Amino acid sequence: MSMNRRRFLHQTGTTTALAMVTAGLRPLAWSDLESARANAKRLQASLEKLSEFGRPSGGTFADGVSRVAYSDADLAGRQYLMGLMKVAGLAPRIDAAGNILGRREGSDASLPPIVFGSHIDSVPNGGNFDGDLGSLAAIEAIHVLQEQGLRTRHALELVVWANEEGVAYGRLLCGSRAAAGRLVEGELDESWEGVTKRDAIRKIGGAPERIEGARRGPFHGYLELHIEQGGTLAKDAVPIGIVEGIVATDRYEVVIRGVANHAGTTTMADRQDAFLAASHLAIAVNQLVRAEAGRQVGTIGRLNVTPNVPNVIPGLVRHSLELRDLSSAKIARLGEAIKTKARAIAESTRTEIEITQTSHDDSALATEAVQTAIEGATRRLQLASRRMPSAAVHDAQIMSRLGPMGMIFVPSVGGISHSPKELTSWEDCANGANVLLQSIVALDSADLG
Amino acid sequence: MSMNRRRFLHQTGTTTALAMVTAGLRPLAWSDLESARANAKRLQASLEKLSEFGRPSGGTFADGVSRVAYSDADLAGRQYLMGLMKVAGLAPRIDAAGNILGRREGSDASLPPIVFGSHIDSVPNGGNFDGDLGSLAAIEAIHVLQEQGLRTRHALELVVWANEEGVAYGRLLCGSRAAAGRLVEGELDESWEGVTKRDAIRKIGGAPERIEGARRGPFHGYLELHIEQGGTLAKDAVPIGIVEGIVATDRYEVVIRGVANHAGTTTMADRQDAFLAASHLAIAVNQLVRAEAGRQVGTIGRLNVTPNVPNVIPGLVRHSLELRDLSSAKIARLGEAIKTKARAIAESTRTEIEITQTSHDDSALATEAVQTAIEGATRRLQLASRRMPSAAVHDAQIMSRLGPMGMIFVPSVGGISHSPKELTSWEDCANGANVLLQSIVALDSADLG
Repeated sequence: MSMNRRRFLHQTGTTTALAMVTAGLRPLAWSDLESARANAKRLQASLEKLSEFGRPSGGTFADGVSRVAYSDADLAGRQYLMGLMKVAGLAPRIDAAGNILGRREGSDASLPPIVFGSHIDSVPNGGNFDGDLGSLAAIEAIHVLQEQGLRTRHALELVVWANEEGVAYGRLLCGSRAAAGRLVEGELDESWEGVTKRDAIRKIGGAPERIEGARRGPFHGYLELHIEQGGTLAKDAVPIGIVEGIVATDRYEVVIRGVANHAGTTTMADRQDAFLAASHLAIAVNQLVRAEAGRQVGTIGRLNVTPNVPNVIPGLVRHSLELRDLSSAKIARLGEAIKTKARAIAESTRTEIEITQTSHDDSALATEAVQTAIEGATRRLQLASRRMPSAAVHDAQIMSRLGPMGMIFVPSVGGISHSPKELTSWEDCANGANVLLQSIVALDSADLG
Repeated sequence: MSMNRRRFLHQTGTTTALAMVTAGLRPLAWSDLESARANAKRLQASLEKLSEFGRPSGGTFADGVSRVAYSDADLAGRQYLMGLMKVAGLAPRIDAAGNILGRREGSDASLPPIVFGSHIDSVPNGGNFDGDLGSLAAIEAIHVLQEQGLRTRHALELVVWANEEGVAYGRLLCGSRAAAGRLVEGELDESWEGVTKRDAIRKIGGAPERIEGARRGPFHGYLELHIEQGGTLAKDAVPIGIVEGIVATDRYEVVIRGVANHAGTTTMADRQDAFLAASHLAIAVNQLVRAEAGRQVGTIGRLNVTPNVPNVIPGLVRHSLELRDLSSAKIARLGEAIKTKARAIAESTRTEIEITQTSHDDSALATEAVQTAIEGATRRLQLASRRMPSAAVHDAQIMSRLGPMGMIFVPSVGGISHSPKELTSWEDCANGANVLLQSIVALDSADLG
């Protein structure tokens, strides 16, 4: 939507201020909300405290966290968060999928809520910022408004999504998918470490027997603060990233068939070496992906050689291939270019190369008006920002299917994530929390049509 | 040695013929020995029968054999062979290392024996010709001489080496190494499937407590007939290969260190992809090895990627590298060229590449005079032949440390070995047996100085 369709709070300030008086809160003034700031020390303390749930025994904050969804550590962390929510004036509840929700009513009950939050489950041996920052900054935003007696027009709904990482049961974004009615057929009956997902959800207070109850009603906008998990903001010292969307991902399985043969007796000319073909293909993927401008990436991350012994020429190679970009069309085109090149490599190496697409995840574009609202918030806070894609998966991409979505990124030192070395400076954490809070304020007065 | 140093039997024929008469054998005539031929049908029947020991249950000859050394199938196969040896007039005995020996005295007791044979143990799911052909053709040679009442000047010593393949206990050429006093410190105490090698040797009739007794005395020459296990003879329809030597092998372990990172959030420019570096190195190895004329080969057969998941850029690759050629100097030079290229690849991919040599097996050159004797035999038999290296390992390389050595190769269809599909035509088997027999005859009259 265009800027001229935005409707600011001060245009309707008079009637809203009257409503506030009746609720015993300070009269609502645009400038009060605009000047609200997160309590950086309180945010840091809560991140430090949360890191204790799932910390390696005898470790420190720097040793990271293993808080896999549905584990006892996850359960304890969730209890801690619900305690913080109560202090911030919320009455936490758990939905059928195990997501933690907390609602703060707005001044106009006819308006749909603004939803924001993140997750607190982690990968094994993960870091203290992935998900945690967005969840605790969301609580901090509510806490500040509550302390200062400020009320928004829209109700605010905080959410801590269950099992974002998908380490347990191998499927990502479980809580948000349940909220969007996008669970996979039979998913609740899947088993992990001897427990069904049904029982795991029950363990954290969910109600799998009425999982449909987790489906979300309409919302005004969805916001999520998250660490970048890449190194670009940190490298260029840009404190805030405004996410343009979560990239599309095409996944392929590549099978290369040569002839396994004796590494001594088979002359170089007679070889049909599947690994030599794979090497040529890996270099071609790299070259083709880098040949055009843009942020597209291509990765061969998993590769297995058969029979994989030093004195036998590899007869078979299987490997993954992943292509990501905001543009589904661009990665589809790249996939075709790679297949064409693979045919030439197969011919020159006398191997067979079979490239099969195994999945396509569409991109999830952030709503332009939400990006504009976040941008306004960064200007108000005098923080430099940059628009950028998210190459990592987030619950926000599921929410984008249901309504307007935006994400805020803060720098990851060295781009390291899913590691105890994951790090975002306390200053950047506070900046992110302030941008989240002020983006809520900006959205509250925006018509997202 | 030069041809003019060869001393032929007919030069000393008279006295030898007299000796033969006293032993009740036909008077020895050069032409009688020269016209001796293997019984092709009997050889085929014995190969077919031997294939039953270790054959998959319900299978046929085409299903190959699993006759791992020291197994019950190996034991049964050895019993069968010793039966054949008795029919051929030998009194089989088992030495301290478990090698089967059979001696046929010559006419001149002052001369050292001619030794020949091979092995009958196999890899799991192996073929019916690797080792078997050389062992049974050796028995066939003796059998023919015995049938025709022909006696050589030198004693003949047939040997069936124990555990050539080294599948059990992971060390190759066990029997021949024992015969050369080249067992590894503590080797007899090594365990495999819960049994020490000491007990395994005892199972097949050896005497590990006096393993030194397996050491061989001097011999006139060592001959081994074997399938090529490569495809060059079959491809060019050359029936006989005369081995120039068993190649030298340099083995390296390559470790490539990049940075494991998120496959979505890390831009192409920021990557330090260990597998991309490995791909460049694999192509460089192939190009450098092929850049100069010769039969040298270079192989990357084993490669492992860490963490080996589709959405993480490979942070670590470990792989093998093997270089083989008759010339140790050539593969050493190639190894240096590869290291130099690796430094450039490490720099351009921003990775670390560490190449460590883990072993050097020296080449084992066949004795020129033995090659000449084999060549003479092929001419007599009107069989085309070609001199060639052996890129596979054989007991002959151990024997070459103790005395004159030569090997005879016959074609492997498609170059396939260590597989049930291993195949040599019955005609080629018979040709090989005849060349072995006639090479024995030729050696018998040759001065190998």
